[in-house]
Formats: sequence, structure tokens, C-alpha cells
Amino acid sequence: MEMLDKVLQRIDDDLNASLDRLFALLRIESISTDPAYNESCRAAADWLANELDSLGFDADARQTGGQPMVVGHDRDPGGNLHVLFYGHYDVQPVDPLSEWSAPPFEPALATAADGSKQIRARGACDDKGQLMTFLEACRAWKAVAGKLPLRVSIIFEGEEESGSASLEPFLQANADELRSDVALVCDTGMWDRGQPAITTMLRGLVGNEIIVTGPSRDLHSGGYGGAARNPLHVLSDVVAALHNENGRVMIPDFYEGVDELPAEIKAQWDGLDFDGDEFLEGVGLSIPAGESGRSVLEQIWARPTCEVNGIYGGYTGDGFKTVIPSKASAKVSFRLVGSQNPEQLRERFQAFVRERIPSDCQVEFLSHGASPALRLPFDGPYLQRARRALAEEWGTEPAITGGGGSIPVVGSFKRLLGMDSLMVGFGLDDDRIHSPNEKYELSSFHGGTRSWARIIAALAEEGS
Amino acid sequence: MEMLDKVLQRIDDDLNASLDRLFALLRIESISTDPAYNESCRAAADWLANELDSLGFDADARQTGGQPMVVGHDRDPGGNLHVLFYGHYDVQPVDPLSEWSAPPFEPALATAADGSKQIRARGACDDKGQLMTFLEACRAWKAVAGKLPLRVSIIFEGEEESGSASLEPFLQANADELRSDVALVCDTGMWDRGQPAITTMLRGLVGNEIIVTGPSRDLHSGGYGGAARNPLHVLSDVVAALHNENGRVMIPDFYEGVDELPAEIKAQWDGLDFDGDEFLEGVGLSIPAGESGRSVLEQIWARPTCEVNGIYGGYTGDGFKTVIPSKASAKVSFRLVGSQNPEQLRERFQAFVRERIPSDCQVEFLSHGASPALRLPFDGPYLQRARRALAEEWGTEPAITGGGGSIPVVGSFKRLLGMDSLMVGFGLDDDRIHSPNEKYELSSFHGGTRSWARIIAALAEEGS
Repeated sequence: MEMLDKVLQRIDDDLNASLDRLFALLRIESISTDPAYNESCRAAADWLANELDSLGFDADARQTGGQPMVVGHDRDPGGNLHVLFYGHYDVQPVDPLSEWSAPPFEPALATAADGSKQIRARGACDDKGQLMTFLEACRAWKAVAGKLPLRVSIIFEGEEESGSASLEPFLQANADELRSDVALVCDTGMWDRGQPAITTMLRGLVGNEIIVTGPSRDLHSGGYGGAARNPLHVLSDVVAALHNENGRVMIPDFYEGVDELPAEIKAQWDGLDFDGDEFLEGVGLSIPAGESGRSVLEQIWARPTCEVNGIYGGYTGDGFKTVIPSKASAKVSFRLVGSQNPEQLRERFQAFVRERIPSDCQVEFLSHGASPALRLPFDGPYLQRARRALAEEWGTEPAITGGGGSIPVVGSFKRLLGMDSLMVGFGLDDDRIHSPNEKYELSSFHGGTRSWARIIAALAEEGS
Repeated sequence: MEMLDKVLQRIDDDLNASLDRLFALLRIESISTDPAYNESCRAAADWLANELDSLGFDADARQTGGQPMVVGHDRDPGGNLHVLFYGHYDVQPVDPLSEWSAPPFEPALATAADGSKQIRARGACDDKGQLMTFLEACRAWKAVAGKLPLRVSIIFEGEEESGSASLEPFLQANADELRSDVALVCDTGMWDRGQPAITTMLRGLVGNEIIVTGPSRDLHSGGYGGAARNPLHVLSDVVAALHNENGRVMIPDFYEGVDELPAEIKAQWDGLDFDGDEFLEGVGLSIPAGESGRSVLEQIWARPTCEVNGIYGGYTGDGFKTVIPSKASAKVSFRLVGSQNPEQLRERFQAFVRERIPSDCQVEFLSHGASPALRLPFDGPYLQRARRALAEEWGTEPAITGGGGSIPVVGSFKRLLGMDSLMVGFGLDDDRIHSPNEKYELSSFHGGTRSWARIIAALAEEGS
């Protein structure tokens, strides 16, 4: 029997004890946003540091400006590849409590109508259940092989649900200690109940605000209408010019750095059990609004966007006022993919806008953040090994997914530590994270633990 | 000596006594919007009714739901043409009182730096000084000729500065009594110190609100951006499509009912001492925004407009939110000229918008009022006679002006009594109406009284 098979066997045999440990963690009411639960957060951090210590890690729960940060380093690594595993021990508040069918901090294993077993508690999925899949995989490896075949470090955050204020300062202050070859982030989901997923791309974001000034003061449209430039018209012209009728963004060189998907990934996405019509129907729409000729998945994962998030100007209360306003504003954001350069894009956008402002009007710009897209190279070793490991565990190729939004820690790892992240998680869309009656499928917990055991083995292989 | 010359002589000789009477009216603190001054408003109405009575009118100050309405009919008319003169005895509040260089209700004749004499008081121009020009003209006619050569009725409103709530119900209830051949409205201004003006056109107004709904709820732009239709984009496309690059409104048949100005009027406007550049510079602009090939005066007086008065949608607070909103709204108004039909225009606008709404989005419309343009026929007898009278008095042709905004009473007269209005007034742009230190030039008061004496004579002429 190969070592990995023995580790997997150990995981299966130890499942009930693993659940007991998870339940112990789930009982701790670690709601980070509410100061009334600060002691519970400290207790959860201590509990995890203690677990890590008992698994052979040098670990402690370190003070921050907010909730403690748990850091651990394996005392006796069995390989050279250094991975940093990330999870978070804090959970969302539980209100409205009346909508829970059982107390949120009294975890239980329940059988659903379809016969599946579910772990029910606040944090069962997000993120205590998820982070424990990795800990239990490490435990099994150590129990069977004595050592992990990698050099494993761990960081558990306690403020993910409340803004992560301490995360970046902590990463900056401890960069040398934490910098590893790759980060393993377990806070995402499976494609569906039977198919795992690896999130390999997250779109970047550039936020801008335009303020167009026309007349020097608000004017009466009776006295000036027809002669005075209306900044709402100017702004609408600018916004309308941002896209052509095929949904393409018209800023010159906007698509520089946007790569076509590898044919293999594109084929996989086309084959995924995803119905773009259904996705849009869920929000009352039926016509994909983005670039024509692109699937909905491409539009939300792999293509850049330009989106107006707010417009404001003139009279907006009830009734009517015949005003030509002095100013009109729009908040415009871009989702970035590939190697699009945020600052360059901002400049191109501003130039595009300036060109369209009549010479007797003014435009100001406010900047609201800029982050590049993140992606794990498709052909790099980490992704390829994790794919293989997951395929072997689940009997089907993992979906290589994108994420339309951002996962802040992944950006922080990249920017502050120069690390890519392998995002693998086992949540399901119906896990009700952040809502009453949160659950985590036993199959997610068990399969997730086995998956990490396999990924650990795969990552440890040289030259594959 | 002709009769008219004698009347004018009488006006000149009686100027000081005329001023005493005006000052008596100016001393009454008839601020209509503040209930604390209700008794003063009643006093002003009674004072006027008493004056009319002493001039040979059947007159009284009639109760309304608000301030009294003064109505008078000449007991002994000397002609058949029936005119209804309109003015208002109520005034604006006086705050901030500290900015007045003399108490607002203690009228005085002062000499300005340029040597001109000014009547200083709240209401000196708007509208007590103006309405008294007509009363004093009637007084001189009666004193000299015994009778007015017309059948004169008078209505003095007391709520012009506070919304005119009682005006329309009063006109409706007394339509048969008040309906005349033409209304004389004295609440406008001269072109400048040396040139009188007749306002002959007022633009109409159609107010609309568009509410575009895209997704059934607000969406996160990370998860949906690129695939989900953004109603702010839809709305901006609609607004941008409303005008072409030459400032023309693109709604089909929008210009139906819009006539070209008579060449004579156009030539007069081109010759007026009006600097479009200066007009725009006053509000920080330099490029006329309306239809190209039209002068600024045409744009604001004689051409219809489509103006967005407010846009609202998405996140509009400080900072940024990556939202694709469910709804976006715009308030859009049209200024109408000529015989443009308000309801037809509204329908055409709505059809234009509907055509541009993607089939998976919805649009709702709210209506905010609709009034047609008003105009005194250029070639009708009243305008021609008044032009001649004013030209004789001031030694220069009166400017035939338009008004970009509305003067509600003129619309009410047209709609409820079927009467056109001849708008002649003697205010100047620097009279500071509604502001501290309101004044009326003695030349306006004296020349205005003489002007009405001449207009009365001119209107009385048969067949000219």
C-alpha cells in the first residue's frame, strides 16, 4: 500500500474524531465584528494554536490591533517546497436568530431530505469546516508518515468577516517569516456536489469617479435651457461612448494585456454544467450584456469590464425641478483580467473622458483603489498537480474557474509577499454562508480532507 | 393739443403726487408667504380697492382661501375694447434684513452714483411700482378726458410670490366676469434702461421621469459585471441619443409645430445689444450648447429644448461600491415653442425611450406637468399698437422678446379664460427683485406710466 493510500485510509478511519474536533471549534462563538465576542475570538485562536502545537507546529496566537492572528510552522518539515495555508476562524453574526432551526453554536450532524449528511452550525463551511480539512489532512499525514512531505506554514486570520484591518500590517511586519513558494487558500467552493474546482483567476479592480462641471452654478432651465451646457448631457455622452453596440469597451488599447483563454480551459468551461440563461434569469434578465460572442462565464470571469456603479446630478428628489445643474458625477469601475495595468488603464480612461469634455466644461477625477487581476499560471506546476490530485479524488476533472470579484487576502499575498495562491475549497452554493442555518456537507468535509492529503502528496513530487 | 399729449402732461405734472401714492402702498408690509403678515396683505388689498373706487371703478378686495383678490371694473368705460390688467400687490420676504441699506418698508427716493433717481423699497419694482404705472395712467386719462377710451377691468393678486394657490380657482369661479379681449400683464422688464420690451412668447414645459429597471435586485459587479445589463448604461445611452452633435433633439417629429421666427423679429434680435458670449460667461461657459446655427437668444426664447434635470442611480455616497443597480432614473423636461403639442410630445418621447430599452429591461414613466407655449401673434393688432406706443414714448423700437421660462398667470389666462396676454413691464435687470435693496428707477415709474397712457390710447384706436 502506498503511503498516500494509507493516509487516505487513516482519514476515513478517523472521520468521527475529526468531526468531534471540528465541532469543538464550531462551539466557540468567534464573531469578529462584535466586540462582545472578543474573548471568544481569542479562545478560537488559542484553540487552533494549541491544535497546531499538538500536531508538531511551532504555533501561537499573536496579538494584533484587532483579533489575534494564528501562525504556525511545522517543526519538522519533510520536504523543501514551502506552502502557506490560509483560513479564517472568525464567523459572521447569527442574526436573525429566530430563523435558525437549531442553535448556531451547537453543531450537529443532520440528515437532509435527500439523505445527505450535513454539518450544521455558524462557520460550518465559512471557514472553520474548510480550514479543518487541511488540518485533518496534516494530522493524517503525520500519523501515518511521521512527517509532511512539504514544509508547511499556516496562518489563520480572525477578521476576515469584519474587514481584515490587521491582515496587511501583519503580513508586512512578518513578510520574511511568512513568504513561501505558494499559498493554499481554502475559502472558495466546489463547482457542484460532484465536481471540485480550483479558482485560478480573480479580476482586478480600478475605481474612478468623474465630476463634470458645466455652468458655475445651478441654472434655471427656463432662462438658460438651450444655450447652457448641461453636465448631465456631457456625462451621459461620455458613459454612452464607453461601450459600442457589441458590448466592447471603446477606450483605446483597453484590451492590451487581455489574453485569450487557453483552448483547453475554454472547452472545459463550455462543457461545464452552467446555464448562462438560468444565471441571468435568476436576476430577472435574459440577454447577456457583455461582449458579443463570449459566453456568460467568459464575460464574468475572463473578460474585463467597464461598469458605471453610480450616477448623480441635478434634482433627484420627488417631483420636478427645472434645473440645469452645475455638476454631474459618475462612479466608474473596471474589472481587470490578465496583465492589464491598473494605473495605465486609469490614465487611458481619463484621457478618453477628457477628450469628450467640451472645452468650456471641467472634469475632475477621484481615484478609488486599483488592483491588478490575479491568476495562477495555467501551465505552472502547482495548478497542474492540484488538478491531478483533485481529479483522482473526485473521479472527475476539477473545474478551473475564475472569480468575478476579489478575494482580498489573495491580492495581499501577491502584493506584499509576491506569492501566487492556489484556491481550493469545498463549499457549495447552497451552504447558506452568512445566513441562518449555515451548513457544510459531510462529503465536503471528508472529501476535502482527502483532497488536501492528495494535493500535499502531489505538490511534494519533484519535477512532475 | 391732442388728448394724449394732455394726458402725458398731466402725468408729468402729477409725478410727485404719484410717488406719494406709490410710497403709501410700499409702506404696507404685504409679505404673502408669512401668515404673520396676513393683515398687511389685507390692508394692501383694501388700499388698492379704495384707490380703484376713487378712480371710478366698482372694486373690492375679495376673500379667497389665501390672500384677498382685488377686482375692479370701470363704472363708465369710454370704449368697447375690454382689457384686463394684472398685477400683484404681495412682495417677497425681506431677509436678510441686515443687508438692506435702509428699512425695506420705508420707501425713499435716492440718487444713485450715476445720478439716476431710484425708488428704494421692497416691492418698488416687483410688483407695486409696476402696477401703479397703470393706475396712474388711468388716473391721468380720467382727470384729463373724463373717461378711459377702453373698457378696463383690473385684477390684483396677493399670492404671486407664494405659489398663486388661489389664482386658478378664482379665475374659474369668475371666468365670465373676468374674460376680456386681451390681458395686460405688468410684471416683466425693459430690454435695458433706454429700450422698452414686449414679451410675446413664453416657452411651454413638459416634465417627465424615466425609471429603467434592469436586474431584479442590486448586483455585485464582481459576480455579474460583464453579463448583467446595467440600467445606468441603458439610461445613459437613451440620454445620449436625445441630441445629435449639432444640438438637435432626435426624437422623431420633435420639431413639428416649431415655426421659424418672422424675418423682422430675427433681424431685431440680431440687432439687440445682447452678447451671447457675455451671457454664457456670466455662468462660466463659452460655447452655446443648443442647436448650431441659432443665436443664443433664439436658443433660449424661440427654440424648444430637451433637458435632463436630474439623474440618479446606483451608489452615490462617498467612496465606492461595486454595485450594478437594479434601477436608474432620469428627470427629463422639454421647453416647448410655437404650437408643439405637450401630450403628443410626451408620447413621442416615451416611444423614443421605449425603442432603446433592451427587451429584458423595463421602463416606467412618471409625468410632471405639461403646458403648451404661449405667444401673442406677431401680426395681431394688440402687439402692433403697443409697439408703436412704446416706440413713441422711448424713441426706439421696443424689443420683442421671448421668455425661456413660464409666467404662470399668463398660462392661466390662456387656459381658463382663452385670453392672450400683452406683457409689458419696466423693470431692469439690476432692480434686485427678491433681494435686499430692491429698487425701481424713477425713469421706469415715470416712463412706465407715460407708456401705459400711450398704450391705452393706441389700443383704443379702431382698425389700425
